[in-house]
Amino acid sequence: MLDELKQQVLNANLALPQHQLVTFTWGNVSALDRDRGLMVIKPSGVEYSVMTVDDVVVVELESGKVIEGTKKPSSDTDTHRLLYLAFPEIGGIVHTHSRHATIWAQSGKDIPAWGTTHADYFYGAIPCTRLMTDEEIEGRYEWETGKVIVETFHSRQLSPVAIPAVLVNSHGPFAWGKDADSAVHNAVVLEEVAYMGIFSRQLSPDLGVMQQTLLDKHYLRKHGKNAYYGQ
Amino acid sequence: MLDELKQQVLNANLALPQHQLVTFTWGNVSALDRDRGLMVIKPSGVEYSVMTVDDVVVVELESGKVIEGTKKPSSDTDTHRLLYLAFPEIGGIVHTHSRHATIWAQSGKDIPAWGTTHADYFYGAIPCTRLMTDEEIEGRYEWETGKVIVETFHSRQLSPVAIPAVLVNSHGPFAWGKDADSAVHNAVVLEEVAYMGIFSRQLSPDLGVMQQTLLDKHYLRKHGKNAYYGQ
Amino acid sequence: MLDELKQQVLNANLALPQHQLVTFTWGNVSALDRDRGLMVIKPSGVEYSVMTVDDVVVVELESGKVIEGTKKPSSDTDTHRLLYLAFPEIGGIVHTHSRHATIWAQSGKDIPAWGTTHADYFYGAIPCTRLMTDEEIEGRYEWETGKVIVETFHSRQLSPVAIPAVLVNSHGPFAWGKDADSAVHNAVVLEEVAYMGIFSRQLSPDLGVMQQTLLDKHYLRKHGKNAYYGQ
Amino acid sequence: MLDELKQQVLNANLALPQHQLVTFTWGNVSALDRDRGLMVIKPSGVEYSVMTVDDVVVVELESGKVIEGTKKPSSDTDTHRLLYLAFPEIGGIVHTHSRHATIWAQSGKDIPAWGTTHADYFYGAIPCTRLMTDEEIEGRYEWETGKVIVETFHSRQLSPVAIPAVLVNSHGPFAWGKDADSAVHNAVVLEEVAYMGIFSRQLSPDLGVMQQTLLDKHYLRKHGKNAYYGQ
Repeated sequence: MLDELKQQVLNANLALPQHQLVTFTWGNVSALDRDRGLMVIKPSGVEYSVMTVDDVVVVELESGKVIEGTKKPSSDTDTHRLLYLAFPEIGGIVHTHSRHATIWAQSGKDIPAWGTTHADYFYGAIPCTRLMTDEEIEGRYEWETGKVIVETFHSRQLSPVAIPAVLVNSHGPFAWGKDADSAVHNAVVLEEVAYMGIFSRQLSPDLGVMQQTLLDKHYLRKHGKNAYYGQ
Repeated sequence: MLDELKQQVLNANLALPQHQLVTFTWGNVSALDRDRGLMVIKPSGVEYSVMTVDDVVVVELESGKVIEGTKKPSSDTDTHRLLYLAFPEIGGIVHTHSRHATIWAQSGKDIPAWGTTHADYFYGAIPCTRLMTDEEIEGRYEWETGKVIVETFHSRQLSPVAIPAVLVNSHGPFAWGKDADSAVHNAVVLEEVAYMGIFSRQLSPDLGVMQQTLLDKHYLRKHGKNAYYGQ
Repeated sequence: MLDELKQQVLNANLALPQHQLVTFTWGNVSALDRDRGLMVIKPSGVEYSVMTVDDVVVVELESGKVIEGTKKPSSDTDTHRLLYLAFPEIGGIVHTHSRHATIWAQSGKDIPAWGTTHADYFYGAIPCTRLMTDEEIEGRYEWETGKVIVETFHSRQLSPVAIPAVLVNSHGPFAWGKDADSAVHNAVVLEEVAYMGIFSRQLSPDLGVMQQTLLDKHYLRKHGKNAYYGQ
Repeated sequence: MLDELKQQVLNANLALPQHQLVTFTWGNVSALDRDRGLMVIKPSGVEYSVMTVDDVVVVELESGKVIEGTKKPSSDTDTHRLLYLAFPEIGGIVHTHSRHATIWAQSGKDIPAWGTTHADYFYGAIPCTRLMTDEEIEGRYEWETGKVIVETFHSRQLSPVAIPAVLVNSHGPFAWGKDADSAVHNAVVLEEVAYMGIFSRQLSPDLGVMQQTLLDKHYLRKHGKNAYYGQ
């Protein structure tokens, strides 16, 4: 069973360059077997072109201990762990430096809901975290990064299911989903809306958020018990 | 004969990712057999990489009833139906979220006629619809989307033959033509002029519309009885 | 001998989509056999994917008469003819609607010399023509387009050898060279400097032209009797 | 041993079009055998598609004399030489006109450190050189270009190891590293941060530099004795 999860994590990592979300090794995908409390994650700094299923690393969710694998896990492992611990609904996480989502992150701004592309996947603005304190950066940095993400969702009363992505200030995006594949899917959508948002604001500098009714309509025709999109 | 139309609709749908007009399944093409009153359309949420001619769906134009096919038709089926009913000259329709046309749609602005690329295909500005009312959104949403498109053309006295595309406010573009293939063609041109328009306005913030004489010249050398472009 | 020229013109036309300078059939390349007074040019509206050497058309330079070929020549044939007649040094011409050069053309602005990429190929700003008059547009339009280009070079005392491209206002670029291949080469460079110019001005809204000394240095290390670039 | 270096230089040159850093022949990579005082560099103006290991040129570092090879070395050879002489830690150099780094160079502006993508590779702003004087341009131009780069690093007290790239004003970027491959790697990163910088500033016109603590954290988790990124 973990073999299947490892394969999914490998495939999801290899999907990142295919979707042009990463340069070099700048991205990582993990997935969780929540019942066993085990997380499978990309190894640190290994090139996608040579990565095999034997390179992915199994980490114990609670302790962070490597359970299986000869490589070091991604340097962002602790951020993934904290998100899985805080968000019980999610089963896969992606981190990238995809260009346009990173531009919003570097600018320190939320991506407003400006159209139905956004509304089909994100039930409101995609938040950007506050700047981290020096103590957080100099301490357990990757763990604290996760904590700031969770703080952002809690303080703004956002649901990680309804808003499956975040921008880490001065850094880049994390996206997630029920599994590795849906996390990658959301990372692709995030990049699309990030691109379109930059130039929508250029064309309409004072653009307000989209109508709430339209946001409801599009989000709910694809999600929840009354969804009617797809087969 | 419907076999041929189904094949055309499949090919036109598969052309969307080739022209980089869609991400995932975010687009749909239909075509009409007006004599029989039957519309062929993409199934909802099926990936382009696995779509076959058996997946496309035949829908009765008047009633919206599925006549043939095991899949659910595109969730935008009612918008397509209304456009065919209102615009008797058209035989194919494309809906995408192509990046730059969507940026204009999200910005709520018409794309002005700013050059001969535009004038070769669109005889004036490409209109953006008004915002829909809450009643329209919460009612028969996809049908009402079609009605707002038609209202835009009627109230501005535009011809759907001379202006074969529209931007749905806060949403994205629809394009059309005499058949599925020409609808895709117009969707590609729309994306080109949308891209060039964003940065033409950046370079010349006060850019007025192009000369009417030049618009006439280019549109009419490709369209109508005195056209002299092509073989 | 004309066989060779026809093959060159075919190859140069096929190079346009490879360099991503054209969408659909929106471009054309010609070349001239000046001794014989014959021009070889792309047929009008034929797709690049099916074009063969038998599709290109031989036109008499002076009269514009088709000498060989079963297809109609490009609708822009008269513009090409006039440029060859006015600029005796050139042997190949390219017209495209490449995105960023067209953006400058639509904006009605010259592309200033803003760096050595520009200076390596263009000895000064790439000019944009004046708007054409209604009489010019409604008359022999394509011929008049050529005349406005030549007027631009003459009135500004520019050399078509030193500045091998122009932006036709509200339309798009023409580039040229000693043969079809070098004309395509210059069209590619034009698109590069057009792209970089848009965002150089964004970063530095008040950017002045580059130093004349640097322009001289780079242009002359690649062109003229003291050139030392290349083998 | 020089055979291996020649192969590395060839591979690194061929990597430039793969990373979309160059158009035509607009780029060059060199590498140094510091013990022997020999530099291997791309030939001038040879197309990447036909370049072989026999085309690369061996140049004596001190004198600039060609030691091996039948082609003329890159016209930028003297800039490479001066950088190797001034920066004893580096073993490979890349020069390109990559679009977005060149945009910053043309604008005459440093690229500020605006996020962790930058901080992972560059320990502070990537500097843009001052304009060269007429004497420098008209004199030993390529050598003087190197001198202005070195002056920039010395006068601002920058380390070429910590900041492995520069923007030459009105021209384009140079990047370097311990060998040819790492120089190409840094040139790719430079282009990424250049792209993201343009639009980060568009979204946040008054964006200040990133937190020093975060810059330290990211740079030092990948570089130096306490690095913990990678295997």
